[in-house]
Amino acid sequence: MPEKVTLAVAGLGTVGSAVLRQLRDNADVVAARCGGRRVEVVAVSARDRNRDRGVALDGLAWHRDALELADVEDVDIVVELVGGEDGVARALIEKALRAGRHVVTANKAACAHHGVAFAELAQAGGVQLRFEAAIAGGVPVVKSIKEALAGNRIRELRGILNGTCNYILTNMTQSRCSYGEALAEAQRLGYAEADPTLDVEGVDAAHKLALLSTLAFRHRPAFDAVQVEGIKVVTQEDIGFAREFGYEIRLLATARQHDGNEIEQWVRPALVPRDSLLAHMQNARNGVSLRGDFGGNLFLAGDGAGGEATASAVVADIIDIAAGRRVFPLGEALSSLPECSALPPSRSQGCFYLRLHAADRAGSMAAITRELAAAEISIERIIQTSTPAHDGDAQAHAGRLPVALLTHETREEVMRRVLGGLAERRDIVASPLLLRVEAR
Amino acid sequence: MPEKVTLAVAGLGTVGSAVLRQLRDNADVVAARCGGRRVEVVAVSARDRNRDRGVALDGLAWHRDALELADVEDVDIVVELVGGEDGVARALIEKALRAGRHVVTANKAACAHHGVAFAELAQAGGVQLRFEAAIAGGVPVVKSIKEALAGNRIRELRGILNGTCNYILTNMTQSRCSYGEALAEAQRLGYAEADPTLDVEGVDAAHKLALLSTLAFRHRPAFDAVQVEGIKVVTQEDIGFAREFGYEIRLLATARQHDGNEIEQWVRPALVPRDSLLAHMQNARNGVSLRGDFGGNLFLAGDGAGGEATASAVVADIIDIAAGRRVFPLGEALSSLPECSALPPSRSQGCFYLRLHAADRAGSMAAITRELAAAEISIERIIQTSTPAHDGDAQAHAGRLPVALLTHETREEVMRRVLGGLAERRDIVASPLLLRVEAR
Repeated sequence: MPEKVTLAVAGLGTVGSAVLRQLRDNADVVAARCGGRRVEVVAVSARDRNRDRGVALDGLAWHRDALELADVEDVDIVVELVGGEDGVARALIEKALRAGRHVVTANKAACAHHGVAFAELAQAGGVQLRFEAAIAGGVPVVKSIKEALAGNRIRELRGILNGTCNYILTNMTQSRCSYGEALAEAQRLGYAEADPTLDVEGVDAAHKLALLSTLAFRHRPAFDAVQVEGIKVVTQEDIGFAREFGYEIRLLATARQHDGNEIEQWVRPALVPRDSLLAHMQNARNGVSLRGDFGGNLFLAGDGAGGEATASAVVADIIDIAAGRRVFPLGEALSSLPECSALPPSRSQGCFYLRLHAADRAGSMAAITRELAAAEISIERIIQTSTPAHDGDAQAHAGRLPVALLTHETREEVMRRVLGGLAERRDIVASPLLLRVEAR
Repeated sequence: MPEKVTLAVAGLGTVGSAVLRQLRDNADVVAARCGGRRVEVVAVSARDRNRDRGVALDGLAWHRDALELADVEDVDIVVELVGGEDGVARALIEKALRAGRHVVTANKAACAHHGVAFAELAQAGGVQLRFEAAIAGGVPVVKSIKEALAGNRIRELRGILNGTCNYILTNMTQSRCSYGEALAEAQRLGYAEADPTLDVEGVDAAHKLALLSTLAFRHRPAFDAVQVEGIKVVTQEDIGFAREFGYEIRLLATARQHDGNEIEQWVRPALVPRDSLLAHMQNARNGVSLRGDFGGNLFLAGDGAGGEATASAVVADIIDIAAGRRVFPLGEALSSLPECSALPPSRSQGCFYLRLHAADRAGSMAAITRELAAAEISIERIIQTSTPAHDGDAQAHAGRLPVALLTHETREEVMRRVLGGLAERRDIVASPLLLRVEAR
């Protein structure tokens, strides 16, 4: 093996800067893990050359245009940290792979949408495409599925994959603040971006889930098959009810294999038992639970965001490549990966949390429970309180009483039909909310 | 690459049988993860040929003498599942490596004691020695340290690494039974062996810790440097006191890097906060927490024992080798691995739990707290109860009152000196017990 491996790094934000710092500060460790090969950054690209990044850029070739990095002579690995589904990031990944460079990226959006095209280019060029840093920051979930559980048929995976949403939900739980207040605090602390849409609407977690499902259930990425619901619907009242039932509300990403190889994938706020490991994930922590047919239940947790944890995953991918370890980008050869066979939403089933505000008069509870009984939905527990949990709610729902219930397992379609029926009866209920309950 | 990889498997107990079943049942998955190469078992060795293992041995060459497996022509990988520090297991590993075969093993005792010799043989022969299955069953902690955290300086690792001890301690907590009763139940359920010595005295966990410390802190294995204490000292009374303080008692394996690169390694029953992930590990679950300078806190948990989970790790190692992925047995080249520089026990410090039975008369509590104060040990919390927690205790300690306290951070040496002084004053205290408290 040659005595050094050379890198070009596109994007010097918090992650890119941390990658440069880690490669500098831990150069001895990195070289030892690569069998003595030095890992050397030779070129970089970023918008602003003069920003203070806590790391000197002396001696590195600077390129205004990130795409030029694919052309730098003798570069072994291009590290793409620009981000975004298309644009420069996608163009750079494709150009670098075509030029026979290995690519390491933290870009979940581009990989979820263009993973097949990237994998084709990588396989054709005999180079590596790695994206450990794209999912759950410093938690090695990609490696664990592709390698550690390689001999398993995976049955189920569940994860808390978005640090922003988890910060907001745990802060709403601890500080009893509203969604808006928690979001503002997350933005102030740098946990949420100025435009938090991709995070809070669940799209970021869905990108990650689409990739994990690909690796775990051995199909091509199918972002459009992921059912997505954001966290804005969750109120302080729901968090209170969930806790009374013994649960916490988390933005949960779930993928399951059903009979006939059909895959169910969803990202939505859901109730998880308060004593579960997933409920244990506070603030920006990420956690993933995997169930394999031989390996059993594996749980991985760590810092899901932040420059350093993400850099740690980028550097691990670089070291794997530098040490000559190869793995298929999507876990196995594309030729053997079928399209994803998605479970039709009509066949999805589970337990549910239903919250609504019932008219404060005789018969309204009876009407609600009758609707559920007519649909053969059995109620596991029900709570009715006489005071709304939050001042804002009090004004909005004067004369109505908050009710929350948990159902036994039922088809989601049936549940939604009942919900639709109840929502139409505005004399009886207002503002109903339906969430999944993941009890196991 | 050739189209198949051939194996010889020594030891067909619960793990070996599960390896054969997994390779048979999941042959398609395994081949796909190896780029289409088939993984084929060609020879096996075990004591009893005719035992029903739930898997057919037709077509496999049977060898009475496991050592013969190293000589079977065209075998690529020898899988050693015989177990034991020396004897056949060690001889087979060494012979196979000398014969240019890769070796996959679940043998923590042999690797902890002879890891350097094995690694030398593997490096000299240009073959792989892998032992993921030796530690924490199906939890990929070896891979996570060697590869996923490869670019980190690891600062600390803590783990619950012995399923037998964890089963006994969690059962004592849940069922309020004695150590003896919990052990008998563990034996009945197959969680503990007929002779449980290696497990309950902490030796098995110490083997595993010595290996993890090697990988994490980049030194040669130093089993003798691990301070070991078993779980027999823990009584129902201690579990009750710990819970009153907000802790659970677990057999904890800890390795830490101190200034000057000195490594502290110990396995002992310790108090961990009840709301920590480690306290969450019930029954035979294993969990490991790692702290890297860039990756932050990583937590891994799963089934630490059982044939299938361990087989899953063996098969993952086989797939890594079959796919051509190489990694140094001890994380990096032996030439760069120094001997372990162990922290002298006199410099170890932490917080402590002290339990004793004080004479039921005026002045005994004052004498105890005065001894601690004289040694400048400050007490964080103290509980004195008037009734012993257990009937057996009541008879043994009639006229004495149970006292438990937690200290602030202090040197262990100082704490032991005080303890020795107290133990000598039999008129004041009886049966003192000292445990570490791991609060962070």
